[in-house]
Amino acid sequence: MSHFERTETVRFAHCDPAGIVFFPQYLVMLNTLVEDWFDRGLKIPYAGFITGRRLGLPSVRLEVDFTAVSRLGDVLVQRLQVLHLGRSSLQLAATYLGADGELRLRARQVLVCTSLDDHRPRPLPDDVRAAVPAFMENDA
Amino acid sequence: MSHFERTETVRFAHCDPAGIVFFPQYLVMLNTLVEDWFDRGLKIPYAGFITGRRLGLPSVRLEVDFTAVSRLGDVLVQRLQVLHLGRSSLQLAATYLGADGELRLRARQVLVCTSLDDHRPRPLPDDVRAAVPAFMENDA
Amino acid sequence: MSHFERTETVRFAHCDPAGIVFFPQYLVMLNTLVEDWFDRGLKIPYAGFITGRRLGLPSVRLEVDFTAVSRLGDVLVQRLQVLHLGRSSLQLAATYLGADGELRLRARQVLVCTSLDDHRPRPLPDDVRAAVPAFMENDA
Amino acid sequence: MSHFERTETVRFAHCDPAGIVFFPQYLVMLNTLVEDWFDRGLKIPYAGFITGRRLGLPSVRLEVDFTAVSRLGDVLVQRLQVLHLGRSSLQLAATYLGADGELRLRARQVLVCTSLDDHRPRPLPDDVRAAVPAFMENDA
Repeated sequence: MSHFERTETVRFAHCDPAGIVFFPQYLVMLNTLVEDWFDRGLKIPYAGFITGRRLGLPSVRLEVDFTAVSRLGDVLVQRLQVLHLGRSSLQLAATYLGADGELRLRARQVLVCTSLDDHRPRPLPDDVRAAVPAFMENDA
Repeated sequence: MSHFERTETVRFAHCDPAGIVFFPQYLVMLNTLVEDWFDRGLKIPYAGFITGRRLGLPSVRLEVDFTAVSRLGDVLVQRLQVLHLGRSSLQLAATYLGADGELRLRARQVLVCTSLDDHRPRPLPDDVRAAVPAFMENDA
Repeated sequence: MSHFERTETVRFAHCDPAGIVFFPQYLVMLNTLVEDWFDRGLKIPYAGFITGRRLGLPSVRLEVDFTAVSRLGDVLVQRLQVLHLGRSSLQLAATYLGADGELRLRARQVLVCTSLDDHRPRPLPDDVRAAVPAFMENDA
Repeated sequence: MSHFERTETVRFAHCDPAGIVFFPQYLVMLNTLVEDWFDRGLKIPYAGFITGRRLGLPSVRLEVDFTAVSRLGDVLVQRLQVLHLGRSSLQLAATYLGADGELRLRARQVLVCTSLDDHRPRPLPDDVRAAVPAFMENDA
């Protein structure tokens, strides 16, 4: 396997007066995708990563192409892959697809591992470094 | 004048367990920046644009560099300029600065004018087309 | 069966700088509980109710006791029952429990069925009226 | 003066597919009303209260009557009074009015002062205790 997948239903709370997903809500979903990837993909509990180790993963770069609208009740298949594993950073690629396979968005995000105390970069912990390569595009 | 400016205080609701702005909240602020720009910059009431004319301005492209963290109580000076005015689309550049002038984020966003009914592109209305150039980088 | 149940994991986006669920997020979850109850409890698709029939279910009354904090990663068991079925209104009772059975909150909410077009009350549709009693506390 | 007042414009991000304020967003506004009351009413910086002193003000009880809908662009006049000042708790009353004076909601909220570290109650600090009575209904 080289990508992680989860699905999420578009909720009333995600939608705007146009009846479609309000774009910042797609990014709330993106954070949840990363949380589930930690928990079920990397098998490293996200809550423990944040609360226990007092590490954070703030975004330093985000690029999104919104290619089609999503409506209340749509089921979005969200896929995540790792493009690059740095010393402190992770570059992720995500796609959201409708149930019919239509691409709804394509995102790239660079996250940096930081301390919650001083918000300065920290090396990604060894267990994360060991688990990430299974989700890289060209893993051997 | 070639840019529009507003300020917003970082609220409890914007902040995450790391005590800093959760990145999707910066994008909620970006939408509000566009709303205020319509109301006070372009002098075209945003609510009337959406509700009255039944037009929307969904994002089709977003690029953000998050360059420094923002904390509860920080006052963010948000600036908006127009990079490109298309037939149906607007390309915007925004920066958020701390009170000390420190750059917190730099964003580019492409919005497309659509009908709220079918979510398909519509030409930007004439009053918008006429008012936008005052906020372009190289207006004469 | 006389109640509907779903579980939801507390996400980073739900939590505030105190590291616990920010109270409005519990109410976003409450709306999702109602959505899932429609879909899986009443077997009446919520998205179709809203988008297809153009009906809404705005809150007219809400009462919540927050009895214990919830933290990132907590799994909340959410239960919903109907206390009263009116002509246009539903009075709901919800409880959220931690995995250990600890009560996190207890809510009562009165929803009114309205038209999305004029926001005025409408009688609850017959299929809703027929399906609701199975979730009333003292159903026969 | 016996109440604190602020205004807030209803934004796109507050509104749902029905084109009206999604009820949890009214409660995000309620938190902001308390923040502004600290900053400009009590003259005790809210950010310093939370981040500096590491105190929180979680809700333990909330009661809201939603009496009329609010739409995109509406200006809401929000008023706050203190009903009761306890050792660790504050009971607040809030009303939101439209520009025409129409009541949109009436809320009561009980907040408890807690430590951010253990989430257990702490006495309200002396400066807060001293400043609150000016906002009580029957201050002398």
